[in-house]
Amino acid sequence: MKKRKVLGVTGIRSEYDIMSSVFGAIHHHPLLELELIVTGAHLAPAYGFTIQEIKQDGFKIADEVESLINGDIASTRVKGMAIQLQGMVQTVRRVNPDFLLVLGDREEAMSTALIGAYMNIPVVHIGGGDRVVGNVDDQVRHAVTKLAHVHFVTNQESFDRVVRLGEQPFRIYNVGNPGLDRIISVPQLTAVELSERLEFEIFEGEPFVLLIQHVISTEIDSAYFQMKQTLEAVKKLGIKTILSYPNSDAGSQQMIRAISEFEDLPFLFTAKNIPRIEFINIMRRTSCMLGNSSAGILEAPLLNLPVVNVGNRQKGRLHAENVQFVPHEVNAICSAVEKALFDQSYREKVAKCTNPYGDGHSSERISDILANIPIDEKLLIKDMVY
Amino acid sequence: MKKRKVLGVTGIRSEYDIMSSVFGAIHHHPLLELELIVTGAHLAPAYGFTIQEIKQDGFKIADEVESLINGDIASTRVKGMAIQLQGMVQTVRRVNPDFLLVLGDREEAMSTALIGAYMNIPVVHIGGGDRVVGNVDDQVRHAVTKLAHVHFVTNQESFDRVVRLGEQPFRIYNVGNPGLDRIISVPQLTAVELSERLEFEIFEGEPFVLLIQHVISTEIDSAYFQMKQTLEAVKKLGIKTILSYPNSDAGSQQMIRAISEFEDLPFLFTAKNIPRIEFINIMRRTSCMLGNSSAGILEAPLLNLPVVNVGNRQKGRLHAENVQFVPHEVNAICSAVEKALFDQSYREKVAKCTNPYGDGHSSERISDILANIPIDEKLLIKDMVY
Amino acid sequence: MKKRKVLGVTGIRSEYDIMSSVFGAIHHHPLLELELIVTGAHLAPAYGFTIQEIKQDGFKIADEVESLINGDIASTRVKGMAIQLQGMVQTVRRVNPDFLLVLGDREEAMSTALIGAYMNIPVVHIGGGDRVVGNVDDQVRHAVTKLAHVHFVTNQESFDRVVRLGEQPFRIYNVGNPGLDRIISVPQLTAVELSERLEFEIFEGEPFVLLIQHVISTEIDSAYFQMKQTLEAVKKLGIKTILSYPNSDAGSQQMIRAISEFEDLPFLFTAKNIPRIEFINIMRRTSCMLGNSSAGILEAPLLNLPVVNVGNRQKGRLHAENVQFVPHEVNAICSAVEKALFDQSYREKVAKCTNPYGDGHSSERISDILANIPIDEKLLIKDMVY
Amino acid sequence: MKKRKVLGVTGIRSEYDIMSSVFGAIHHHPLLELELIVTGAHLAPAYGFTIQEIKQDGFKIADEVESLINGDIASTRVKGMAIQLQGMVQTVRRVNPDFLLVLGDREEAMSTALIGAYMNIPVVHIGGGDRVVGNVDDQVRHAVTKLAHVHFVTNQESFDRVVRLGEQPFRIYNVGNPGLDRIISVPQLTAVELSERLEFEIFEGEPFVLLIQHVISTEIDSAYFQMKQTLEAVKKLGIKTILSYPNSDAGSQQMIRAISEFEDLPFLFTAKNIPRIEFINIMRRTSCMLGNSSAGILEAPLLNLPVVNVGNRQKGRLHAENVQFVPHEVNAICSAVEKALFDQSYREKVAKCTNPYGDGHSSERISDILANIPIDEKLLIKDMVY
Repeated sequence: MKKRKVLGVTGIRSEYDIMSSVFGAIHHHPLLELELIVTGAHLAPAYGFTIQEIKQDGFKIADEVESLINGDIASTRVKGMAIQLQGMVQTVRRVNPDFLLVLGDREEAMSTALIGAYMNIPVVHIGGGDRVVGNVDDQVRHAVTKLAHVHFVTNQESFDRVVRLGEQPFRIYNVGNPGLDRIISVPQLTAVELSERLEFEIFEGEPFVLLIQHVISTEIDSAYFQMKQTLEAVKKLGIKTILSYPNSDAGSQQMIRAISEFEDLPFLFTAKNIPRIEFINIMRRTSCMLGNSSAGILEAPLLNLPVVNVGNRQKGRLHAENVQFVPHEVNAICSAVEKALFDQSYREKVAKCTNPYGDGHSSERISDILANIPIDEKLLIKDMVY
Repeated sequence: MKKRKVLGVTGIRSEYDIMSSVFGAIHHHPLLELELIVTGAHLAPAYGFTIQEIKQDGFKIADEVESLINGDIASTRVKGMAIQLQGMVQTVRRVNPDFLLVLGDREEAMSTALIGAYMNIPVVHIGGGDRVVGNVDDQVRHAVTKLAHVHFVTNQESFDRVVRLGEQPFRIYNVGNPGLDRIISVPQLTAVELSERLEFEIFEGEPFVLLIQHVISTEIDSAYFQMKQTLEAVKKLGIKTILSYPNSDAGSQQMIRAISEFEDLPFLFTAKNIPRIEFINIMRRTSCMLGNSSAGILEAPLLNLPVVNVGNRQKGRLHAENVQFVPHEVNAICSAVEKALFDQSYREKVAKCTNPYGDGHSSERISDILANIPIDEKLLIKDMVY
Repeated sequence: MKKRKVLGVTGIRSEYDIMSSVFGAIHHHPLLELELIVTGAHLAPAYGFTIQEIKQDGFKIADEVESLINGDIASTRVKGMAIQLQGMVQTVRRVNPDFLLVLGDREEAMSTALIGAYMNIPVVHIGGGDRVVGNVDDQVRHAVTKLAHVHFVTNQESFDRVVRLGEQPFRIYNVGNPGLDRIISVPQLTAVELSERLEFEIFEGEPFVLLIQHVISTEIDSAYFQMKQTLEAVKKLGIKTILSYPNSDAGSQQMIRAISEFEDLPFLFTAKNIPRIEFINIMRRTSCMLGNSSAGILEAPLLNLPVVNVGNRQKGRLHAENVQFVPHEVNAICSAVEKALFDQSYREKVAKCTNPYGDGHSSERISDILANIPIDEKLLIKDMVY
Repeated sequence: MKKRKVLGVTGIRSEYDIMSSVFGAIHHHPLLELELIVTGAHLAPAYGFTIQEIKQDGFKIADEVESLINGDIASTRVKGMAIQLQGMVQTVRRVNPDFLLVLGDREEAMSTALIGAYMNIPVVHIGGGDRVVGNVDDQVRHAVTKLAHVHFVTNQESFDRVVRLGEQPFRIYNVGNPGLDRIISVPQLTAVELSERLEFEIFEGEPFVLLIQHVISTEIDSAYFQMKQTLEAVKKLGIKTILSYPNSDAGSQQMIRAISEFEDLPFLFTAKNIPRIEFINIMRRTSCMLGNSSAGILEAPLLNLPVVNVGNRQKGRLHAENVQFVPHEVNAICSAVEKALFDQSYREKVAKCTNPYGDGHSSERISDILANIPIDEKLLIKDMVY
């Protein structure tokens, strides 16, 4: 029997971290085969040239499609998407897959959805129905939902939202968030091992903060200010802090400029690219996450980790009790971090929270569905329920 | 007071016919100024190089963005969109308009919506909320709705659908279909004048059929067959028929091949590009429209004109009593055309039908709203109502 | 031993006709393997979708890179080249060949040469050193020579010219024109077989003219006039004429318009795409070639066929005594055709002419050289001799 | 009288430094008007976002064409050129200039030359005929010469080389190097002023070395090694050194990595972007230039400044007696720098050298020729002299 060919698209480390377990499950499934289009930040030295990680994972790369333009205004991002779309359509034409697979709300998701919709190849979208107001990603995510043929949502709220958007129910599956799959399987590192890999010291039992803050696309002009506020709080708190660099969005150069002004702080450690294994082990050890990373919303509850979320980026998302939301303001940030670290009753509440985003077995569900779902007119010709 | 700059995007004759009255109303509005991006089929000799018409209308052209690739499979269309997107973003960066304006569900609409969403420029979309199952255009139209900031819908049904898609009510206006504006204002031609311009004879009071049939994007492989069925019916009916060529979609070459096989029929007259004035005058005189043109659904009721719609392209759309729907089958087509021409009670019913798509004053409404709507955070930062 | 991988680039029927024997020789060579990038007019229905022929020939296609924009002004051609370049670089990155191989002076040649020069992959160029004044192709051809690493020229004059351009002698080989290889090996068709395949009658021994005329890129605005002059001469001569459509260059639409005005001539037969086998057999039978096809200069002498070359396109090229050059003027064209057909002393001279472009064994030479030439710094780092 | 419109293309700081006086002369010429396409590194934050400087100089910007992809292998550069070409052709179509103007041998030069050649717009190329073996730029420069219509060369050797390349003599003008024009007119800064602007100290009369080293495109893999050798020499010499960052070519990231390893040297000062005024003033004060910048060859002799040129980048170029050539080897570099600084007889020889690249009045010559040269068939239709 001919295997179904899945062409996955991956564009950035943060998304690959979530998808690699899905790619692995497809790659190993007896009825499926996998190829990958690698694009975007994966191919950019400025963001760690993470394609090397993908090659090490042993997946077949259909094409490398460079798309990240060295620029820092909003139009740059659209131009990059145009270049990506032009490259990817050439690959899809050659590979002629049974499914296109993509996660999220970045340019990759839109490019993939457009190609599948026009070329009549089923688009499998992971992460639809989420809602993050105040960000172009939100518009893109819902637009991708209207273009895609199969929706793997990660939680009940998103399931309900995709239903309300008029998608036919047979297309929608709540599989949980595959990003959680690896959080369970990642090997445990000792403090010594972790320190060696990171090239700075992490001590057994030592309290520290993990800081990740990205640009909000509608607040690009505030990127510098926002990062600066958080770092002023870090300075004031005086607690050891590990900072992971922002994603390659427009405005990120401004954040990097802000970071450079604080690099002399003796208790601040910065890292451009923390590999997944190290990252999970940091999450297992950190006392509190700070910033606006989606990991705080999605993954932290599985580890019962307190999170201080700054600003609008994750606002309004379904979340467990481990998250506090604060504005871009030094004192508010300090208070929330202090509560996360030292308020025992709050810490006990967090220690008991459950994760609304899944149980760590999403990848198996996804690959089984792709192996078995009928590929027919019903799947390909979309209708709205209203 | 500085005028608001509207950057309109136009890609094809059929859409420009609808939009030209909107462009005119903006161009003449004291608080607005207009520039146009001309792209797609307008710049292709194979489709009549209709940019010349736009130049004659006197609008300022910001850039000519060629995007139509000479190819005939589905991937061609996506590649063309990528090229279009890359060119348009350069123009938008330079012109830096207050609004982006586009109609419909073609590549132009998607490119425009993506640029506005990422660049934080309000996207004004005309024609959202319509529903035409079985066509990628349907997916694209709804995706564009999720990206756009202002929705000018053309009928109540579409208004309701955009509301259900979660768009905030303040963004949605039912202005009617601007395509009807020009149908009223177009000058009357005598049969003799019309004949001279068309280069074939139309006689006063003579019954004839107007045939326009486009490719359905999910049924590209049937394009040849579908056109052939209709032309076999034309042949069998033996009634004078004027055929206008299909749009430049993937598969249209197949239709053109079918047409070429019937070009010897003495009562069949074909035309690659019928200018708008002539087209309206033909509609005023024809006894029946045949095919799957949206003009049959949208404009024909204003002229109380019977329409025989073949196949799936307009299926499920809100329509008046002037439309009969039939499959791609010779006999069904023949019967419906005969009923349209000769069944007096049916013709009387059509003579009294009203148009659910508007009253011919949409362009004024649109330009007034664009002149007055606040351009602020509320407009730019989209939120869903659920 | 690992075979050397040659990545050939082909963009149009006329060039593929010349290159197919080279591709075949490489494909069958024990030390070489071949993949092809198929681009340009090969993928355009308007020009016969000739990729199907390439597939039938059994070559491995690395990627299909659509690049032909539906437009008719000069900028269209550059935009098409940009698109081609963007697509091809993706393929070369994946395939990572030992050689890039391309013929001539069209966009494909320039795209290939740029990719090889920047990516440090040896560019093998066939047809350098030729000189055809009055055409952008001339500039492009010499520019390609300055970028390429190996030059397979087709005649002594071109050899000398490439030397004078400062290229190092070890890079230059006079291998003759590979287009002649197939002219010898193509199977003989009877008049009856040929007629059946062409769908019009060719009688044994019947005199007829073969007309092929392309646009001159610097005389685009005259394209209509030029074709019309030639067709007026055909009309006046009243001799059976077979017309093959022009290439897909800017301006060709104007020529096609001129052709359409003469389609009623009872002794004029037009064909959009004459396959190679039929074409050679037509050349073997025709009494005279007319127009400005390079086949008249390159291949006709091997068949001792008289040629009337109209206008500037082939002017100044090395040629045998079989070619008469005339301006775009009805009477001059008529006289020259009459001389070609009826002047016995001229016909005898043509019957004895030899071909300065080779002997029909170029493909073997090319493949042997590619199998054996050292790929080293000397080859890759170009130096000028002055 | 209608002014002739010149559309200049500029892609990077180093080239703009040379061209700005030409742009100024055209801008102020009564018979000429100027617009600029700004592209490449000018628009990249990683290379200083130097478009701001162009805006300050008050030139009209026709379009901003982003083209620099964030990547670090050779194919990246070609892809960037494709994107640039696609964007620029749109601008040229709109602006429809009388001349296209570009300097040098980078992607911009090739894109410009291709557009002009195909669109029949005279391409004015500055800097043709130079020869720098071992670099793709050399191939590109000569290819551009074969495409361009007017050649402004900067020295007699280059004049002779363009003649030998077969260009018609009437197209070639030895105008000297316009980069020297500004070196004369730039205002004098005191050591104190200069220090303030650079944010590190330069003392009156203090000896120091100016180091600028770029990647060689055929030696990308050695980029790290090459920079490291030079910096080891700097370390060994122990003399104050000002390092200006390399250009944005493939491989430059490797060089930047090498630089980062030496950033602790107390006498090494690094700068990402030294503005032109500061740069000239540094050149006026430095005791010796080191690396492979073309400024050492072209401009240094006008200031009678000793230069130590490392490696192959400028090898074989016409140069005055101020330049010593050395390999990538620590000791050779050290000896040459010591000779440049301390060998009195050598320093006296340098003090008397004359500049083969011009006298500082090139821009006037260029603008006068552009104002007066006939734009006719003779200019547009290129012929070779052999």
